[in-house]
Amino acid sequence: MSRYQELAEHTARLIADGLLRPGERLPSVRQACRIHAISPVTVTQAYYLLESRGLIEARPRSGYFVRARLDPRLPEPEMSHPAGGSTQLQVSDFIFQILDSVRDPSVVPLGSSFPSPYLYPLDKLGRFLAGAARRFNPLATVTDLPPGNEALRRQLALRYLAQGASVSPQEIVITSGAMEGLNLCLQAVTQPGDLIAIESPTFYAGLQASERLGLKVIEIPSHPRHGVSLPALEEALRRHPIKACLLMLNFANPTGSRLSDDDKRALLALLRRHDVPLIEDDVYAELYFGQQAPLCSKAEDKTGLVMHVSSFSKCLAPGYRVGWVAAGRYAGRIQRQKLSFSLATTIPVQIALADYLRQGGFENHLRRLRQTLVQQEAELARAVERHFPPGTRLARPQGGYFTWLELPARVDTLRLHQEALARGISIAPGPIFSATRAFRHHLRLNFGHPDPKRLEAAMATLGALIAGQL
Amino acid sequence: MSRYQELAEHTARLIADGLLRPGERLPSVRQACRIHAISPVTVTQAYYLLESRGLIEARPRSGYFVRARLDPRLPEPEMSHPAGGSTQLQVSDFIFQILDSVRDPSVVPLGSSFPSPYLYPLDKLGRFLAGAARRFNPLATVTDLPPGNEALRRQLALRYLAQGASVSPQEIVITSGAMEGLNLCLQAVTQPGDLIAIESPTFYAGLQASERLGLKVIEIPSHPRHGVSLPALEEALRRHPIKACLLMLNFANPTGSRLSDDDKRALLALLRRHDVPLIEDDVYAELYFGQQAPLCSKAEDKTGLVMHVSSFSKCLAPGYRVGWVAAGRYAGRIQRQKLSFSLATTIPVQIALADYLRQGGFENHLRRLRQTLVQQEAELARAVERHFPPGTRLARPQGGYFTWLELPARVDTLRLHQEALARGISIAPGPIFSATRAFRHHLRLNFGHPDPKRLEAAMATLGALIAGQL
Repeated sequence: MSRYQELAEHTARLIADGLLRPGERLPSVRQACRIHAISPVTVTQAYYLLESRGLIEARPRSGYFVRARLDPRLPEPEMSHPAGGSTQLQVSDFIFQILDSVRDPSVVPLGSSFPSPYLYPLDKLGRFLAGAARRFNPLATVTDLPPGNEALRRQLALRYLAQGASVSPQEIVITSGAMEGLNLCLQAVTQPGDLIAIESPTFYAGLQASERLGLKVIEIPSHPRHGVSLPALEEALRRHPIKACLLMLNFANPTGSRLSDDDKRALLALLRRHDVPLIEDDVYAELYFGQQAPLCSKAEDKTGLVMHVSSFSKCLAPGYRVGWVAAGRYAGRIQRQKLSFSLATTIPVQIALADYLRQGGFENHLRRLRQTLVQQEAELARAVERHFPPGTRLARPQGGYFTWLELPARVDTLRLHQEALARGISIAPGPIFSATRAFRHHLRLNFGHPDPKRLEAAMATLGALIAGQL
Repeated sequence: MSRYQELAEHTARLIADGLLRPGERLPSVRQACRIHAISPVTVTQAYYLLESRGLIEARPRSGYFVRARLDPRLPEPEMSHPAGGSTQLQVSDFIFQILDSVRDPSVVPLGSSFPSPYLYPLDKLGRFLAGAARRFNPLATVTDLPPGNEALRRQLALRYLAQGASVSPQEIVITSGAMEGLNLCLQAVTQPGDLIAIESPTFYAGLQASERLGLKVIEIPSHPRHGVSLPALEEALRRHPIKACLLMLNFANPTGSRLSDDDKRALLALLRRHDVPLIEDDVYAELYFGQQAPLCSKAEDKTGLVMHVSSFSKCLAPGYRVGWVAAGRYAGRIQRQKLSFSLATTIPVQIALADYLRQGGFENHLRRLRQTLVQQEAELARAVERHFPPGTRLARPQGGYFTWLELPARVDTLRLHQEALARGISIAPGPIFSATRAFRHHLRLNFGHPDPKRLEAAMATLGALIAGQL
């Protein structure tokens, strides 16, 4: 641990132990230099780190202050208890209504699946794309057919390597976003009528894909902080002919839950024993709030059982529609699925992203993005505390830009969705995240749109609407 | 008819009647001015027109000459006779082998599905893409979600209007190429186990998609010049519960056949009577060889029964992966399929194409492209005549860049494919275009790669390999 990390940990402990209280001023940089006998740069780095973790905040011309407590004053939502048994799917028109509302900029996008596009370096990416467009070699139209542009696959392999995972560029297939990736993976390993295991709650895109492919799903209980229940999954694997698991291990949509590194290892061991592939939707992995990236499942995947699906849409390049699958033993099948479903992914943007990864400053962008999201999460939590009625439970995710709320049992979030939309606010009601329309008094909120005033007003309105249902 | 068209028609008749023979010199521009009492510009326009129709050719510093006869010296392949009955599909690894060989620039791409990327204005498009990338508005990442960029859909609607079809931008859904469009259409109107009607022979992508979706297909006989047999289709519609027809009406892949305008009207009337939707894969429509664009089926589609699928990949922008569906009454369903399959199509390239269509000179590009393909077709036909053994039948398509050959019955084109590939030449053997692996002595050749010397050598080799099988 370096000096600045030591100072940060030391200060964090003082805050955790209540010796430094919310609103109290920290020692100035000059004072801290004297106290700890370290350089101003080290102090500044430590304070930046604490700020990025949401523990302290800078006030212009006054110094650094301990922020209002982030420890949950509100309890977190409970573990899910899906009904059990497999479900034939029928996903309603509802999800499309919500997607529709996202397009209207006058609607406060608390229900959106997308973060604010203004959080991304689209100008800089545009310059890389302009360069790629001008230098576009006509032969790339054939050489970059699936699995896709080689320079981009190589850059991705390097990123995996940095996470301790040995993924060859040959097993990476570029897709038109992670959603196409998920669909191709499901198609590659299932037949109509097959059963797959999903989390409860789960991202609706998986439900839609499963419905389209005529799959049955079994919903596995999941904790809003710790993620999918491994004992429950183990039992399901023993009792049912599950063909694949479709899971989000890092900052899951909708709860923001994260499976611990140890649980990840246990999950992979479990799946190896049953020889069941994991389709992992991991689009939020880069958006972790702490200092340490979560363990990449590919680092523990000795037998190629994991199809690791991700994209640049949430961490770098919304609208570019470039995703990928690190497909292990299924790479050949995924590549064929891609060829016969959409042939290829737009080639100039693949080249632009490869160039950006090499020299665009991805890590700096990610640091800024994570810091923004940390602060946004705290803002949203404070607004919930201020405006939502007693009995509200709130998850406190450690990454991504979604949080999950459990409201008092009498609240109907489908009704709340309609009422809120009439007032220019979108929310994502719980039932769209369940094959059985459970979670009627649950809610997913998006904190990826920095706009404090608008947020405050919208949360006050939501709070009043919820109170009106009690 | 303008003066230059009159002169062109007059000259074309002289050639058709044999008064002007192959190799004979046409009157010089100056002579023609005197003879017909018209301006040099008019004569030049007429000669350009004749040249673009492949009837005459310019020889540097010598003037214009009548080209070698394009009338088929070889007979055309016969009408197909599929076995009848419906077929559960199983498409082999074979198609993927051929796709793989396309990526190797040292292989002569006679079996490729793609034309030469050098035929396209990729530099100019790159400049439009560079502009779109620099001016990219972050809000477009949400406003341009399906159905897609509005400016592009408006430009497409204008092109339909120019073809006499009233297609609203609202019923156009932008897709990641035509192949995704086809898949979404099939998904939108079928369930696993359903029966669809396809041509015989047919493009293998339709077979792959049908296989993936668990569909059964009935193959309708098709003529290599006149396209699908309407009486046979009518009988199939009467006898079987056909859920959709998947057809290429203009310069079909693989035969190059074209349904006449009258037959198109009859086809649409037939489908209306049976209330069966048409999924039309129309990616080659812009590549017609004559002066007159073929009738657009959307111009005759009064009831929104046609899903007209097309793309820019073959006529303008290979590698950009932008296609669309003009989906009539199915527009809402296609849009949802798109949202839940791949969310959106790369947005900067949509904007770039909209800009290009407005001001990039699409018509000029198309004229040059068509003229090149006309000449290429004639080159290939002459090479077949020179090098292939007696008994060869050759289709003479009037558009696109594929031609279809029927070889003597003893020839096995699957074997020929392996033999040719070993000599660095790819071909597309007949059986990949049939659910029942028919067309064992048929062959699709691609004439979209201008490279006369390489073509000549490859065709000589192919001819020898074929002769070796007799």
